[in-house]
Amino acid sequence: MNDFPVDQVDSVVTPWNVSGVVDYDKLIEQFGSQKIDPQLLKKFESLTGRPLHPFLRRGIFFSHRDLQEILQLYENGTKFYLYTGRGPSSDALHLGHMIPFLFTQYLQEAFQVPCVIQLTDDEKFLFSKDNSKKLEDYQRLGWENAKDILAVGLDCERTFIFRDTDYIGTMYPNILKIQKAVTYNQARAIFGFDDSDNIGKHGFPAVQAAPSFSSSFPQLFGPQNNLPCLIPCAIDQDPYFRMTRDVAPKLGYRKPALIHSKFFPALQGENTKMSASMAHTAIYVSDSAKQLKTKVNKYAFSGGGATIEEHKKYGGNCDIDVAYKYLSFFLEDDEQLEKIRQEYSSGKMLTGEIKAKLIQVLQPFLEQHQQRRSQVTDEMIRKVMTPRKLSF
Amino acid sequence: MNDFPVDQVDSVVTPWNVSGVVDYDKLIEQFGSQKIDPQLLKKFESLTGRPLHPFLRRGIFFSHRDLQEILQLYENGTKFYLYTGRGPSSDALHLGHMIPFLFTQYLQEAFQVPCVIQLTDDEKFLFSKDNSKKLEDYQRLGWENAKDILAVGLDCERTFIFRDTDYIGTMYPNILKIQKAVTYNQARAIFGFDDSDNIGKHGFPAVQAAPSFSSSFPQLFGPQNNLPCLIPCAIDQDPYFRMTRDVAPKLGYRKPALIHSKFFPALQGENTKMSASMAHTAIYVSDSAKQLKTKVNKYAFSGGGATIEEHKKYGGNCDIDVAYKYLSFFLEDDEQLEKIRQEYSSGKMLTGEIKAKLIQVLQPFLEQHQQRRSQVTDEMIRKVMTPRKLSF
Repeated sequence: MNDFPVDQVDSVVTPWNVSGVVDYDKLIEQFGSQKIDPQLLKKFESLTGRPLHPFLRRGIFFSHRDLQEILQLYENGTKFYLYTGRGPSSDALHLGHMIPFLFTQYLQEAFQVPCVIQLTDDEKFLFSKDNSKKLEDYQRLGWENAKDILAVGLDCERTFIFRDTDYIGTMYPNILKIQKAVTYNQARAIFGFDDSDNIGKHGFPAVQAAPSFSSSFPQLFGPQNNLPCLIPCAIDQDPYFRMTRDVAPKLGYRKPALIHSKFFPALQGENTKMSASMAHTAIYVSDSAKQLKTKVNKYAFSGGGATIEEHKKYGGNCDIDVAYKYLSFFLEDDEQLEKIRQEYSSGKMLTGEIKAKLIQVLQPFLEQHQQRRSQVTDEMIRKVMTPRKLSF
Repeated sequence: MNDFPVDQVDSVVTPWNVSGVVDYDKLIEQFGSQKIDPQLLKKFESLTGRPLHPFLRRGIFFSHRDLQEILQLYENGTKFYLYTGRGPSSDALHLGHMIPFLFTQYLQEAFQVPCVIQLTDDEKFLFSKDNSKKLEDYQRLGWENAKDILAVGLDCERTFIFRDTDYIGTMYPNILKIQKAVTYNQARAIFGFDDSDNIGKHGFPAVQAAPSFSSSFPQLFGPQNNLPCLIPCAIDQDPYFRMTRDVAPKLGYRKPALIHSKFFPALQGENTKMSASMAHTAIYVSDSAKQLKTKVNKYAFSGGGATIEEHKKYGGNCDIDVAYKYLSFFLEDDEQLEKIRQEYSSGKMLTGEIKAKLIQVLQPFLEQHQQRRSQVTDEMIRKVMTPRKLSF
């Protein structure tokens, strides 16, 4: 899995590159996925017996594959498991990294299902051009990242987090079967590989595909199993799972279902890339209240008028205003968000004010996260990384 | 590792294809290895304090890389470990398959060193075009083959046999490091890969390279180690280890040393391919005395004259006579072998007689092997396949 990328000009979306202003409807068409429609949302609500997550209400998770089948199976008594992941490239996660995990936590709690989380330390090592980092560094980052992930409130009894370098052996039979079913020509067409790429990259897509098949987890789900799988992820990860879904029937496995999110924008706005190596492009979950305040005030791209007068006259543009975007991810209260939208669009609310509001929302989020994370011990990580029978 | 191939017309030598009459001197030049010279043989004899193995005396193991360094280190008190392997493609091994293991057993006994044996069930699955065989079939073949391998008399206290699908996890860090150091362009040049090959093939050379580095075996040799490694193998496996030796310094590892054998010819002669799928092209270690007799008499290509008269007049040609070739591998007594060569070449010994001689030599070899193999239990295989501290 890769870092959560952002939308930019002239849309290009692969697992390693997202650039351009993304037209999400066009992406659905291009990728051949389905839009999440009101009927599906209603089903979600009735099955879980709880209000929809803001990410669903607001179309942040907007696209899917076979989600209705997963919900139908669930309704008929067949539980699924959740699979998501992260490429451990940096010590701290930023807000964009958190989206799939926050959503996975919600799904796990709402459906009471197990969840597997892959940390692709192998991928980060193979794909990184930074030769100062050793394999052991990515392994360590995986371990540290697991603490942030667990801190979102995942249920330890239902969660298995694994680093590829620890768990590859158990998945290897499935990895081989997937690799045998995909030619280099196909992989190159899907992932844009180059002949000067190292040979590890070519086989890697099978490593990310393998957890989509429940037989990759005999200790979790029993030796013989073919459980339905639901994968919450950013839409840029879809190529992996298109490949996975193509291969599944050849192997006698179920196709995994998917639920795709939009991208989380960088502080500098939708047309810039959020980068783990450029601290000022993102808010990290480890940022202090002071860092948060400085970053939002200094770097968050504003859709407001150039002057207060202009702003009051023409209003702010919520479509490009990063503070508003972030609020749409993190402010749970719909009425408040709508009020902010109206007041900012009309010019009544100033840029400084919407930024202050964002800081007011994010500050307790970060504080709570940091507090939870400080309670995650190495012993807890060891436990959650141990393959064992998971509760359903 | 692949099946032991044979020499044919218009020499082409890769791990998956050997064809043509092989000019071994040319191969040494082409591959850039060294010829084993009398001085090196003398060193061998003096260090081991025992007579040279017939495979060495007769130039069957004929080429090497850094063998003098390995012997020098040994003389100075640094022990090496042996690494060889097999691709488990068939239930029984044929005589050609046995050569590296017979020689490895000799080396292990002569130098009292540990030995690791890789069973590349993953490779056989990825490279096989026979889709009737599943991964599980190759795993089973690996297990069965281990019994034949152990039956050559390897020292259980000094031997670790492993199937890749069991052991990949422990080697994975080294595999990743090797993969990252090799581009697809390089691998294609070395192994002749095709863009329509499956993506598993591309990464596989790193799996065969990894056991060359002792850090792939922390349970055997301790967590921190960089032991010298000597690889006895047929010369067609050299491309793997050329790649391995190129990569080694980048990873801070020792280059493995190699000792290469010539090919063991098919029953039909040097220009034909011995195939595990064509039972009549090879003598299997599981063949009965009757099967042996029939195969030798019926299929072993003869270098004798077309008629008894011609044979008596012009003599037999030992260079192409399969019975003589096989005797040169399996008849230990040099004087006897030389006597046979003279009598057959001169026409005094007839084709039926040299074949009878071969049967007389091979029959007890097979009988002894079968007896030893019948004593190898699943429990012994389990034990020898368990990673554990090996004796030096």
